[in-house]
Amino acid sequence: MGSVGIVKYFDYTFGTDESEALRLDCGKKLSPVTIRYETYGTLNNSKTNAILIIHALSGNAHAAGYHSDTDTKPGWWDEMIGPDKPFDTNKYFIVCSNCIGGCSGSTGPRSINPKTGKKYNLDFPAITIPDMVRAQHRLMEYLSIPKWLNVVGGSMGGMQALQWAIDYPDKVESISAIATCARLSSQSIAFDWVGRDAIMKDPVWVKTQGNYENELPEHGLAIARMLAHITYLSDESMNTKFGRKLREKDNYSYDFSKNFEVESYLEYQGQRFVERFDANCYLYITRAMDYFDLAAKTKGNLTECLAKVKSRFLVVSFSSDWLFSPQNSKDIVKALRTNNKDVVYCNIDSQYGHDAFLLEVETLGTLISDFLSSVHERVQKNA
Amino acid sequence: MGSVGIVKYFDYTFGTDESEALRLDCGKKLSPVTIRYETYGTLNNSKTNAILIIHALSGNAHAAGYHSDTDTKPGWWDEMIGPDKPFDTNKYFIVCSNCIGGCSGSTGPRSINPKTGKKYNLDFPAITIPDMVRAQHRLMEYLSIPKWLNVVGGSMGGMQALQWAIDYPDKVESISAIATCARLSSQSIAFDWVGRDAIMKDPVWVKTQGNYENELPEHGLAIARMLAHITYLSDESMNTKFGRKLREKDNYSYDFSKNFEVESYLEYQGQRFVERFDANCYLYITRAMDYFDLAAKTKGNLTECLAKVKSRFLVVSFSSDWLFSPQNSKDIVKALRTNNKDVVYCNIDSQYGHDAFLLEVETLGTLISDFLSSVHERVQKNA
Repeated sequence: MGSVGIVKYFDYTFGTDESEALRLDCGKKLSPVTIRYETYGTLNNSKTNAILIIHALSGNAHAAGYHSDTDTKPGWWDEMIGPDKPFDTNKYFIVCSNCIGGCSGSTGPRSINPKTGKKYNLDFPAITIPDMVRAQHRLMEYLSIPKWLNVVGGSMGGMQALQWAIDYPDKVESISAIATCARLSSQSIAFDWVGRDAIMKDPVWVKTQGNYENELPEHGLAIARMLAHITYLSDESMNTKFGRKLREKDNYSYDFSKNFEVESYLEYQGQRFVERFDANCYLYITRAMDYFDLAAKTKGNLTECLAKVKSRFLVVSFSSDWLFSPQNSKDIVKALRTNNKDVVYCNIDSQYGHDAFLLEVETLGTLISDFLSSVHERVQKNA
Repeated sequence: MGSVGIVKYFDYTFGTDESEALRLDCGKKLSPVTIRYETYGTLNNSKTNAILIIHALSGNAHAAGYHSDTDTKPGWWDEMIGPDKPFDTNKYFIVCSNCIGGCSGSTGPRSINPKTGKKYNLDFPAITIPDMVRAQHRLMEYLSIPKWLNVVGGSMGGMQALQWAIDYPDKVESISAIATCARLSSQSIAFDWVGRDAIMKDPVWVKTQGNYENELPEHGLAIARMLAHITYLSDESMNTKFGRKLREKDNYSYDFSKNFEVESYLEYQGQRFVERFDANCYLYITRAMDYFDLAAKTKGNLTECLAKVKSRFLVVSFSSDWLFSPQNSKDIVKALRTNNKDVVYCNIDSQYGHDAFLLEVETLGTLISDFLSSVHERVQKNA
């Protein structure tokens, strides 16, 4: 299995003319809008082999390959994308775009507000999951793709994939919703609240009222990340990986410095995150997740909201995922089956918690590969 | 069932003479040491009816009754303690003391360091669970109680109850260990780390290096509490209590203000906690919990460490408690049974998560009442 090699990103900007601005759920409009994206593989002549891959909270458009010869780290789903890999670039044309509201190339709170010439920061309008999908649809039109063969995402990416099925039923042949949910639980909303509170109580954030520039609210963002990171793991995987192992010493230091390996690991995760992610974007994107409720328009009735979807579905959960528990996926599957929709469901036995969607490459890869082949064959047969 | 009525607290101070200082696991000595405690009921002539109740992280010595006629809130376990209640004050003499390292009357980091005439703060020595128990033993000697009929505690209180059985096997007739564990898991250590980090990154804490006086590190402490509070509830109970219910409006505000009821609830919990608890005490007590490992001296072998206990045991867990999961209790029970110890175990079916040990009053009350009667009868028979 090969690598897609050296890749580059593209920026597509629309809505420079306000008449083409992106309409948002909050009632405001966003203009202009830039979407950063990457593509791997080649679009076939019939334009029937395009797949949209959607990233999770802290992801970006760089899903596979390297940006230069000296680049040591490949894209975030490199193990899944490439020649002969599950997202086989010999067969499929893969698109991955950075969500709006983010900080990795697409328009977000740290972009320049054309009305002020300064960064939006808190003047940036609230973004929802359907808004993100609406922006992706603009990119789809720009790329002249009539229908996605598959829209796939894990976690927040899975929310968007599900939203695609509802908002654009004729433009998605199939959906792969991995480790995701139809609405965020009370517990997850609570964790998000604490994370945002840590950011918005950070002294730098308070001092600048979110208009930080050189000095960053990094303590708050690190706390938010460390907290979230615990929810991505499982009790079992943490016990296996760290247990109560001490760092260097044979005994406790009897103070508040790092003693346990898990403390060291968390601190590291917090620090690395601050280097690559923005605090205000964290506020906006977690809020989008809080607000996500696939069945909001049908008053919470999931079966009713999924009645008109036309895609085939692959739904995958992981046994030890307590943030987006298997029950969330089962609820989606049940609603789809009640509607007699074509759905493949698998609850993968894994100890890796929510992170499993990035770690269980082999099992997930096989599932995805088989599902895509089946969808692809049927499309070719009908062509 | 009645109330113990108006109660008052007592302060017992020892170790004013350094030769009687409290020896601590960290190698240091604490002197003097004050222990705040309350008692309910009457010690019988044979001194065989004394029960020690041990509080959890944020508890105190005021377990039952009221401090004055105008007091509106009773002690923290009032539903369980009083005439004809499970801890029946017609039959038993109840003692509840505040742990050392705390901020509710017993010596802790906010006490005056006699060597400097100022508050200890970070100069306070690290405290462990066995240290807390050693201090309680001094109180026991002062009260001339030869043997506890029962030592009982939930959560951190349960850790201390277990430690009593090991450190003073001849001085405890029985142990009730509720919603607790023999060692803190990696996940719990991780949550504690994030909570302490929030406190120690609070601008007031940073500015004063923990020697805060009028201005308090309340943002950090509130974040720590909100985070911990989520871990005390269960996903299920949060969904039942709050779900995705909005506060007042029919729709989202599309900003970062409180929208969901669960956000409002968490903020309230954080604010109330800051009024009654101290940030440095939070650091010390969570560290004591991190360090707790009942089987540390037997290299993690729980069976070996429980081989010499002489008490009867009541072990109780709650089905939806994911912080101190039923498995923790089952491990303890298994180790006790391997040693042929007398143990009653019950995993109570409850949706309230870890908080169930304070909420499942009826079921837990019946279990405790029956267990105590059985232990009490046997003691009277042997007398």
